[in-house]
Amino acid sequence: MPNPNPGGLKPGIIPLSIDIPPRYQDLDTLGHINNVALAGIFENARVHFNHSLGHHPADLGVRWLVAAVDLKFVAEAHFPHPLTVYSAVGSIGNSSWTIIQAAFQNGECVATCDTVIVMHGPRGKTTIGPELRAIMQNKMPLKD
Amino acid sequence: MPNPNPGGLKPGIIPLSIDIPPRYQDLDTLGHINNVALAGIFENARVHFNHSLGHHPADLGVRWLVAAVDLKFVAEAHFPHPLTVYSAVGSIGNSSWTIIQAAFQNGECVATCDTVIVMHGPRGKTTIGPELRAIMQNKMPLKD
Amino acid sequence: MPNPNPGGLKPGIIPLSIDIPPRYQDLDTLGHINNVALAGIFENARVHFNHSLGHHPADLGVRWLVAAVDLKFVAEAHFPHPLTVYSAVGSIGNSSWTIIQAAFQNGECVATCDTVIVMHGPRGKTTIGPELRAIMQNKMPLKD
Amino acid sequence: MPNPNPGGLKPGIIPLSIDIPPRYQDLDTLGHINNVALAGIFENARVHFNHSLGHHPADLGVRWLVAAVDLKFVAEAHFPHPLTVYSAVGSIGNSSWTIIQAAFQNGECVATCDTVIVMHGPRGKTTIGPELRAIMQNKMPLKD
Repeated sequence: MPNPNPGGLKPGIIPLSIDIPPRYQDLDTLGHINNVALAGIFENARVHFNHSLGHHPADLGVRWLVAAVDLKFVAEAHFPHPLTVYSAVGSIGNSSWTIIQAAFQNGECVATCDTVIVMHGPRGKTTIGPELRAIMQNKMPLKD
Repeated sequence: MPNPNPGGLKPGIIPLSIDIPPRYQDLDTLGHINNVALAGIFENARVHFNHSLGHHPADLGVRWLVAAVDLKFVAEAHFPHPLTVYSAVGSIGNSSWTIIQAAFQNGECVATCDTVIVMHGPRGKTTIGPELRAIMQNKMPLKD
Repeated sequence: MPNPNPGGLKPGIIPLSIDIPPRYQDLDTLGHINNVALAGIFENARVHFNHSLGHHPADLGVRWLVAAVDLKFVAEAHFPHPLTVYSAVGSIGNSSWTIIQAAFQNGECVATCDTVIVMHGPRGKTTIGPELRAIMQNKMPLKD
Repeated sequence: MPNPNPGGLKPGIIPLSIDIPPRYQDLDTLGHINNVALAGIFENARVHFNHSLGHHPADLGVRWLVAAVDLKFVAEAHFPHPLTVYSAVGSIGNSSWTIIQAAFQNGECVATCDTVIVMHGPRGKTTIGPELRAIMQNKMPLKD
């Protein structure tokens, strides 16, 4: 894992951050926050990020389906300190886009998550419209 | 996603398969099996696969930590048909290895999962011993 | 807990039984199947039981809402042996009914669950119709 | 359910309250917070409440096992408003005690949870010592 946080997500340059407290159920038999639990924490931050786009898929007559999730676990995370999750749009294609995310605990990056989302209409993949595309472009990480 | 199942996992050539029935809790508001729930189903199959290696990490004085999980969602999966998960060793490095997995429902591949596991001893990453390495080599997918 | 299984649920006299394998995610830091995970396992068995009634609430224009869940944990349950869950109708009121359940592992009762379900129509609680009531009466535990 | 909140738990008279934001994973196919998810939210509040007692069971050479959980669902809870969970000791026996809890969302009680916990030593049930008993008595609800 040469670069655990390839998008360079960090405090101050990211469109959306959210604090998510871990739950006892996130712990596994090793006593740390389980990797699948972290996937659920990233999903939860992603739902909040999607809401921040201001265009609910149901209102557009489409579905946003998760096509791929790529998780890197950089350091162990523990109960009960909150996880701060930064989320941004990484790239935008014709009918799909990437959300890049990084989770920090006590100021340290513990995990990253890249998610590919595909827009599906009634007849399969459908093109991202110009209005939503402009909003997404606004949610890409700010450059230093 | 040009090749959703790059390891070519399929019935008959895979070291370990397990049937995992979905649960109502795996469903999300879209009514299908949620992507994080599928991550948990792959994890469960992985734990069974790890048991099949016959060397529990606690007995070796080490921990097997998940360093990366790469999930591809190929088709929607639904309740209540069982998911058949095939698991194999994909590659073996010095202190880490990859488990490749594919989940099928009603004979169709619905998702794949590549997991990087790193062996940690009391002082960090530690080399995979020859005995365990031989067992892992035996768990790689059989070629046609 | 003088009587951990007050409905007397046992093999042979119960309308519906289902085998549910535990998952790694059901384990908590104590290494046993967590009590909330068991609540999820009972819920999953309940969904199968509800399906066996042959009347999906959405088709009836109503919702079946869980009003109360009363769980007793009789013995510790462990990974990976399957849990056999027996489910039956315990009692039937005007607009609500009780599902009684017991979970066994390796032949031993590990937990019971009594659930109160209330039928809600567009204007709140609604009466159970005669056809569904007759089906429910058929799902009460058989007497010895 | 004549009295959904029998312990009279309410803001201002309760030893411990905690805000727990719901997660997307707490939602089920009905689009509301699932009853099993609420059981997990109560458990999480309980773990924080147990920490507030200042006596970790592992340090005492004992285990605190959940023997019973009695949940009442008073109103539907929704994403994403936080749940405020109040927790108190309800009663103290020889080797067991009860934690009473109530969850509020937007100022309304949505669910209550009574949990029986039993202290287990190496040879089964063990008596609650005087020091811990005094701490527990201090965590009972204040009377108006």
